[in-house]
Amino acid sequence: MKYASLEQIHALWRASNYLGAAMIYLRDNPLLREPLRVEHIKQRLLGHWGSSPGLSFCYLHLSRLIKERGLDAIFIAGPGHGAPGVLGPVWLEGTYGEIYPDKAVDRAGIEGLRRFLRDFSFPGGIGSHCTPELPGSIHEGGELGYSLSHAFGAAYDNPDLIVAAVVGDGEAETGPLATSWHGNKYLNPARDGAVLPILHLNGYKINNPTLLARISHEELQSLFEGYGWTPYFVEGHEPMEMHARMAEVMGECLDEIRSIQQRARTGDERVQRPRWPMIVLRSPKGWTGPAEVDGHKVEGFWRAHQVPLNSVRENSEHLAQLEAWLKSYRPDELFSADGALCAELRDLLPDGARRMSANAYVNSGIVRPLALPDPRAQAVAVASPAGMRVGNTRPLGRYLAEVMRANPDNFRVFGPDETSSNKLDDIFAVTGKAWMAEIYSEDADGTHLARDGKVMEMLSEHTLEGWLEGYLLTGRHGFLSTYESFAHVIDSMYNQHAKWLTICNEVPWRKPIASLNLLITSTVWRQDHNGFTHQDPGFLDVAINKDPEVTRIYLPPDANCLLVTGAHCLRSKQHINVIVADKQEHLQYLDYDAAVAHCRAGAGVWDWAGNEDGGEPDAVVACAGDVPTQEALAAVEMLRKRIPALRLRFVNVMNLFALTPKSEHPQGWSDEDFDRLFTRDKPVIFNFHGYPYLIHRLAYRRTNHSNIHVRGYMEKGSIDTPLALAIRNRIDRFGIAMDVIRHVPGLADAHADVLAALRIEQQACWDYAVEYGVDKPEISAWQWVPQT
Amino acid sequence: MKYASLEQIHALWRASNYLGAAMIYLRDNPLLREPLRVEHIKQRLLGHWGSSPGLSFCYLHLSRLIKERGLDAIFIAGPGHGAPGVLGPVWLEGTYGEIYPDKAVDRAGIEGLRRFLRDFSFPGGIGSHCTPELPGSIHEGGELGYSLSHAFGAAYDNPDLIVAAVVGDGEAETGPLATSWHGNKYLNPARDGAVLPILHLNGYKINNPTLLARISHEELQSLFEGYGWTPYFVEGHEPMEMHARMAEVMGECLDEIRSIQQRARTGDERVQRPRWPMIVLRSPKGWTGPAEVDGHKVEGFWRAHQVPLNSVRENSEHLAQLEAWLKSYRPDELFSADGALCAELRDLLPDGARRMSANAYVNSGIVRPLALPDPRAQAVAVASPAGMRVGNTRPLGRYLAEVMRANPDNFRVFGPDETSSNKLDDIFAVTGKAWMAEIYSEDADGTHLARDGKVMEMLSEHTLEGWLEGYLLTGRHGFLSTYESFAHVIDSMYNQHAKWLTICNEVPWRKPIASLNLLITSTVWRQDHNGFTHQDPGFLDVAINKDPEVTRIYLPPDANCLLVTGAHCLRSKQHINVIVADKQEHLQYLDYDAAVAHCRAGAGVWDWAGNEDGGEPDAVVACAGDVPTQEALAAVEMLRKRIPALRLRFVNVMNLFALTPKSEHPQGWSDEDFDRLFTRDKPVIFNFHGYPYLIHRLAYRRTNHSNIHVRGYMEKGSIDTPLALAIRNRIDRFGIAMDVIRHVPGLADAHADVLAALRIEQQACWDYAVEYGVDKPEISAWQWVPQT
Repeated sequence: MKYASLEQIHALWRASNYLGAAMIYLRDNPLLREPLRVEHIKQRLLGHWGSSPGLSFCYLHLSRLIKERGLDAIFIAGPGHGAPGVLGPVWLEGTYGEIYPDKAVDRAGIEGLRRFLRDFSFPGGIGSHCTPELPGSIHEGGELGYSLSHAFGAAYDNPDLIVAAVVGDGEAETGPLATSWHGNKYLNPARDGAVLPILHLNGYKINNPTLLARISHEELQSLFEGYGWTPYFVEGHEPMEMHARMAEVMGECLDEIRSIQQRARTGDERVQRPRWPMIVLRSPKGWTGPAEVDGHKVEGFWRAHQVPLNSVRENSEHLAQLEAWLKSYRPDELFSADGALCAELRDLLPDGARRMSANAYVNSGIVRPLALPDPRAQAVAVASPAGMRVGNTRPLGRYLAEVMRANPDNFRVFGPDETSSNKLDDIFAVTGKAWMAEIYSEDADGTHLARDGKVMEMLSEHTLEGWLEGYLLTGRHGFLSTYESFAHVIDSMYNQHAKWLTICNEVPWRKPIASLNLLITSTVWRQDHNGFTHQDPGFLDVAINKDPEVTRIYLPPDANCLLVTGAHCLRSKQHINVIVADKQEHLQYLDYDAAVAHCRAGAGVWDWAGNEDGGEPDAVVACAGDVPTQEALAAVEMLRKRIPALRLRFVNVMNLFALTPKSEHPQGWSDEDFDRLFTRDKPVIFNFHGYPYLIHRLAYRRTNHSNIHVRGYMEKGSIDTPLALAIRNRIDRFGIAMDVIRHVPGLADAHADVLAALRIEQQACWDYAVEYGVDKPEISAWQWVPQT
Repeated sequence: MKYASLEQIHALWRASNYLGAAMIYLRDNPLLREPLRVEHIKQRLLGHWGSSPGLSFCYLHLSRLIKERGLDAIFIAGPGHGAPGVLGPVWLEGTYGEIYPDKAVDRAGIEGLRRFLRDFSFPGGIGSHCTPELPGSIHEGGELGYSLSHAFGAAYDNPDLIVAAVVGDGEAETGPLATSWHGNKYLNPARDGAVLPILHLNGYKINNPTLLARISHEELQSLFEGYGWTPYFVEGHEPMEMHARMAEVMGECLDEIRSIQQRARTGDERVQRPRWPMIVLRSPKGWTGPAEVDGHKVEGFWRAHQVPLNSVRENSEHLAQLEAWLKSYRPDELFSADGALCAELRDLLPDGARRMSANAYVNSGIVRPLALPDPRAQAVAVASPAGMRVGNTRPLGRYLAEVMRANPDNFRVFGPDETSSNKLDDIFAVTGKAWMAEIYSEDADGTHLARDGKVMEMLSEHTLEGWLEGYLLTGRHGFLSTYESFAHVIDSMYNQHAKWLTICNEVPWRKPIASLNLLITSTVWRQDHNGFTHQDPGFLDVAINKDPEVTRIYLPPDANCLLVTGAHCLRSKQHINVIVADKQEHLQYLDYDAAVAHCRAGAGVWDWAGNEDGGEPDAVVACAGDVPTQEALAAVEMLRKRIPALRLRFVNVMNLFALTPKSEHPQGWSDEDFDRLFTRDKPVIFNFHGYPYLIHRLAYRRTNHSNIHVRGYMEKGSIDTPLALAIRNRIDRFGIAMDVIRHVPGLADAHADVLAALRIEQQACWDYAVEYGVDKPEISAWQWVPQT
């Protein structure tokens, strides 16, 4: 085995660049074996040439070292728009044709290549990013910002893996990317793989230069040294010089990576944070493409961003220029007549699973199973419903600790500085927080930092979500908790991961991966001093729009339901599970077995709370979410005491999708079941954790919809006690009780005295809260007294 | 006039720290004139002590220089949680009491101070962040990440202003903050004010050290030099040494700022990007608070984050420790018996509008009016409806250029590298893009960079939104355009700005400011090669949940409606205006006058499209959004041609809130008007730009809701032609037409042949798209032929 010569690498790069350019333009005549004519050109020219040559340059140089050194490496293209620069090498490696035989040279001959080129960015074909259909991709790169956090996620607990991540200089301007360089403070060389970032100073975005390409060399070097990296520079445009420099630098970087890892893995000294190498590749945008078009500079300028020659169908000079450009790669020397890459070159690329496009980690070929202990051991004993208060998240935290104990190498827990605050800190009995920055002696008192910790904390929801996605997409398992206020920070990441899973469900060679589990806690109803100005339960309104096959939303009302839900979610695959449950102490309603049954059903009547006695009730009091459940229950107690003849049904909904028709979501209830639960014509007072409209959006097709009156978060509040906040937003016990009275025909007239009394009591509770800063003791200590 | 001595600054700091600690604990006995007892203590202890002393330290040192040099300065507290450290100085300055007389010493005596302390983080009182109720605040600091972008926004076009921004080291870990340091590449010293960042290395977050506090001094220095700043370090814990060092460093920084500005403003040389000064303040968390509690280190450790002594009501030792802590500030020396700060100290603080808390820029005392040209001059001539195609955004772009021409100093346009892509580039005839990084000679060809440009482009939606907010909150005007795919990036920022405005509407001394105008373009229906994996029209689902007094959503169907809408939004105040309109060429429906009328109404019948002829129609075909309007109109044409007896009404909705009841939103239509438009019982086929459920959420209370059938974005797609995408998501003309036939009683049976033909034509269009990569010419060139 020897290195491919620089000339051979250059030939492979010519082949990649040929394919990259050809896929933007050609629907026929794939190797230009006949003169290029208009009918060979696609009618719409779509795709991004600009960063493609740089991407294939990196891909091929890394492939060269893989072949030489037998590396286990994967490739993340931050500028996913430059997919031609990845598709080219992946097709040359043969992986593409193995997965899509109609695009393989072997079986389909030149027609395989023609189809491959034609289907790029073509209706019914494949996208112009590194979509899930592309073997080797775990990062689509459509929205910029997450390449490096995905790369770190892939590297954690994969000690032999090298994750090369090309970061575009456009992407480098985004916030999520700018902070993700700090991932090196969480990467343990003894235990984790390596991330090799390649900052591609392509120079331009769509219409602008990039910031990092327009600061001095000294500033650039300082910036990355400040981030804790050692930058190696590869700068220029003359291909052979650049090949020589890249080969040299990449070899040095891999030497340095191996040396860091070896020191960390064999030495007996304490592991310190190394200064990892990174590469800064400064090369012209649209490198090797047309230098000028119609007198305008194109190569090395913003005009090379997308399609450099975009009038080839209309303008014969452009057509000729395109042909000359494509022929400049000398495809005749590179491909045989049937479209195959010549054997001498193919032999220089890695084989089998060593190809980055065929690496099992990124093609979900390796999903390490999660050993799941029985959650029952962590259950809360509930002697009678709503008779005591327990922190809802703590039993789940104990369970996560057991899961961590059973899965030390393929499970991580993520939280933005909030794992303890969210009362999941029992996990620290099993593992610490990953931390490769400095550790002080006082850290022994409660910061739980550890070089080999498996809890990931950084004050960046973007980074955590990116790490978790990268970790899951390479076959592992995880759990992320975050304050409800800050869940919107990752809305767009949620959307994209959901879409990624949607597509994967249609890509048969991608096997199911572990679900992304997101606990939303520290909720709006217990805002405490985190006041109105950044409270928002609307993450659910974002989540609910995504593919029903992927999206799951649970609102467990108590600790056992949360525990059962958490264990279920950890078992599930291909979902995003959104769980909403507050971290504070709340009433406990269901023992473990009842919780299992309730979670399985998704919604149900709590017989002990209602008094319908077999017949149909006069009204249904329904609830979803922990605080709404408590208030609804307290309302039922008041009503039963004061209007004993009133027949009430109490319904708790913990799977939000139970409300929607079965035709809309796999967890939706049939209309018959829904009507049985909510009646066909009785008033339903529904008390909801989130914005009330969401319930209408789910249930508007149900028989009894016009009788469903929803109370939920109304964007009202300031600094409030729990009850005062509930009153302000109209989900307090008094308000609920009054609403029931108002909606049951005849009741308001017959019980005007009860209505008046409730109003007075509500006001008294409000006044007390404002005077003393806490709720009345009988409110905060309220418990359900079993009714006779 | 002379500097306050360091001893005097220290005395002011003691006073601030006393207040900061006291407001967390005391509901009575505000100056400890009697021994501290449990009944003086609040029942719930809320607030963040940790960063408060550092904030007041910065605030007071800056105030000292304001007094000395007559500076015009404002203060942004990134760690808004540390509000006690801002509230203290603001109360000492007297601004607080002037605005809230019940908390003024003058009028209320010691009771004013008692109320001030008690109301902090107390129900009915004020929040524990720098909320809108706090004079001098434009930055709440609840969600971290935006302090520096707000600061830059405030500084642009405010040449004499110094914006001091304390950046917490927790906040510094977020993505948005990490990239916002690059704001210095957009700040022109000749024209803009100065931003003085103070990175507060407080050392800890809730339960963790901060990253930047645990890297080496060399890395830290490199990082900020790499970002283009000159960091000055103030590090230590001994107060008098720290005062001396801070006074020296802050003086140097202000000298340097003035020197940079003077060179830029007086020299005749070309303005170059200076290396602005910044301060790194490394001080103990919870500085001057309890060193230890129950044997645990507190000062300088994570345990100082929130309430350092949290059992003072239950534990008499803690109570004694609290009393000793509070008394350590020697309040008797600082305050007179009526609670006033002693005169000698008060005289050292700035007076009147020089106080940072009374600066007119941040209290919306200065809102520079926007001169608005007549948009009619930019209107598109529309001879007959839907008879030609024009790029919808271009006339608006021309109008923005005119607005810029008329308002060179108080209007900016923002876009993440997309102003040209969004076809708003006519503005570059009037101004360039702000750019203080390097400019090359080739930039003359189309990058539009200019040292004094007023178009702000950086590939960070977070930064742009933050700049725009800061610009608006200091009394100016702006316009932001972004691709629809990436609008979710700023969901949480949208939410917080909306909430800020909601509160401001209840704070009478804050006058109305310019609306935040957000154009969402490059929409999902013309995804072109930006495929499925990051398309999402769901920003509207986020926006719609916010306060109806603040939220506005418009979907102008054509260029004139967009132009009229844009001008209206620029005129409006206190709103967030979300405008959805695609940038591509679309059919034009309304001439300028008709557009004005349509925009004013919000929704209406397009008589020329329907054929109801006075009577009630058989069905209503409704639409909202440009592409849905085109497809709905094409469907109507087919139906009228093939089933001439069918009476159709065509309704376009451009103000989304017209759909909701008047009781829910000030722009909502009355039920009578709604019923007149949509009938009380006829089928309505509603074709919507976004997720279909949103229409149900708005209209579920309307009489005819059960007959409204919504077609909208269904999360289906890949690379599609416009019509293929529409077919996939069921808003194509054929699908709409078939839906009408299915929902009008008896029609499907009578016209089975039409249904069958439509299905065949739909399939033929699909097949053509997949074969040729474009839509059939008769589809993409389709125009409305006036019906007879």
